[in-house]
Amino acid sequence: MNDFSALDRVRVVLSRPSHPGNIGAAARAMKTMGLTRLWLVSPASFPDPVAEVRASGARDVLDAARVVDSLQEALSGTVLAAALSARRRDLSLARLAPHAAATELVQWSRNTGGEVALVFGNEASGLSNEELGLCALPVTIPTDSAYVSLNLGAAVQLMCYELRLAAMGQRDTASPLPAEPLPEPATHEEIENFFTHLNSSIVASGFLDPAKPRRLMPRLRRLFGRVRLEKEEIAILRGILSSFDAGIQNKSR
Amino acid sequence: MNDFSALDRVRVVLSRPSHPGNIGAAARAMKTMGLTRLWLVSPASFPDPVAEVRASGARDVLDAARVVDSLQEALSGTVLAAALSARRRDLSLARLAPHAAATELVQWSRNTGGEVALVFGNEASGLSNEELGLCALPVTIPTDSAYVSLNLGAAVQLMCYELRLAAMGQRDTASPLPAEPLPEPATHEEIENFFTHLNSSIVASGFLDPAKPRRLMPRLRRLFGRVRLEKEEIAILRGILSSFDAGIQNKSR
Repeated sequence: MNDFSALDRVRVVLSRPSHPGNIGAAARAMKTMGLTRLWLVSPASFPDPVAEVRASGARDVLDAARVVDSLQEALSGTVLAAALSARRRDLSLARLAPHAAATELVQWSRNTGGEVALVFGNEASGLSNEELGLCALPVTIPTDSAYVSLNLGAAVQLMCYELRLAAMGQRDTASPLPAEPLPEPATHEEIENFFTHLNSSIVASGFLDPAKPRRLMPRLRRLFGRVRLEKEEIAILRGILSSFDAGIQNKSR
Repeated sequence: MNDFSALDRVRVVLSRPSHPGNIGAAARAMKTMGLTRLWLVSPASFPDPVAEVRASGARDVLDAARVVDSLQEALSGTVLAAALSARRRDLSLARLAPHAAATELVQWSRNTGGEVALVFGNEASGLSNEELGLCALPVTIPTDSAYVSLNLGAAVQLMCYELRLAAMGQRDTASPLPAEPLPEPATHEEIENFFTHLNSSIVASGFLDPAKPRRLMPRLRRLFGRVRLEKEEIAILRGILSSFDAGIQNKSR
């Protein structure tokens, strides 16, 4: 079972964001993934109508944002913070991949019941060394070396997505989406009956000469064997064959 | 060792995008993850200065974008396409999670050397059922049920990120690469021609009444879409259809 309550305890902190559009995009990105707590450290412009437009249906996240003067304040009361950084110079930190940092944040919040933070720096200058020093987990999103310049809203989207996957427990195994019930699969017998029907139909049509089978049925078995046929699909395929059979019977009369 | 050459063979297709800003954001998202091939199906406005501003340092991706009139054209020559959709109604498809679809696209492109596509619909209306029918892999990004409205640029960012992780081998699932070279895959056009043939054959046989299509062709598309048809298999299937066609023509004489 999924437990998303940890996502309620994740603060997304934007430090000194320059562009209000990115604040709105961050709010929208958060809400799609089930996060709600936005903290802004000395934003250049907030509130701002540009942010509101970009937030779209996530105005509530924007309206509930906390505005503070320093990263210290934004981290007050949290039990763990991760900092996003594209840098590979200075403090040669062992950087975490996004999914590793997200898993750590979610697990730590679950273990402690405390709030955790995900911190993003200014669009142009990133986080200062002092700010990075306040966060225990340095995170780097893998990018192409030719162009590392992720948009701030896009970076928030990626990290919130990873947090959601971590809350779903999907970063341990490659499990599919918890899907709606799958259509009923065909049984072995139904599939064999279909092959028998297919064989007799293409013999009747003249496509398959039983004296020279040319590995045709094995090839068709291989093809349909890859599909995982469903019960209803067998019914459709056999209906089609029957409609062809009727034409061929008439022909031979 | 990472092999990112498969990313050069991924087309990102935006079908009928309304907002030029999202086209620019998509270009930037692609470039950060090492993708370059952007295809636009009937964009509302392109080129557009708003797109250029949002593309930032990814102007080259934007400038190289191909503009076409239909999704069919955008998929021409590809060997596998994945379609993004938030929908959970109609044909209860087993939807893939982003990492599963990304792994499939990268591995298939590596196995075949062919181009693959990742298709995104209009911001408000998504992809039409007809467009979804052209793509073998349905993908849904997991979102909070209270707010599923991912921004288009953000969705492109997430998927390109997953493609990059897949190319890095960080999303590898149980399926290892097959050792021997795979048979040559059918192209989009060959598959579409097969569907056209199938349609006309079952109309001629009386199985499909064009006045009451009963979602028959979408179901058959879904079935054969799961198979990854090979070139030779298409030839066999069309040979079978032709043998049935001949019987039916004789009948109607």
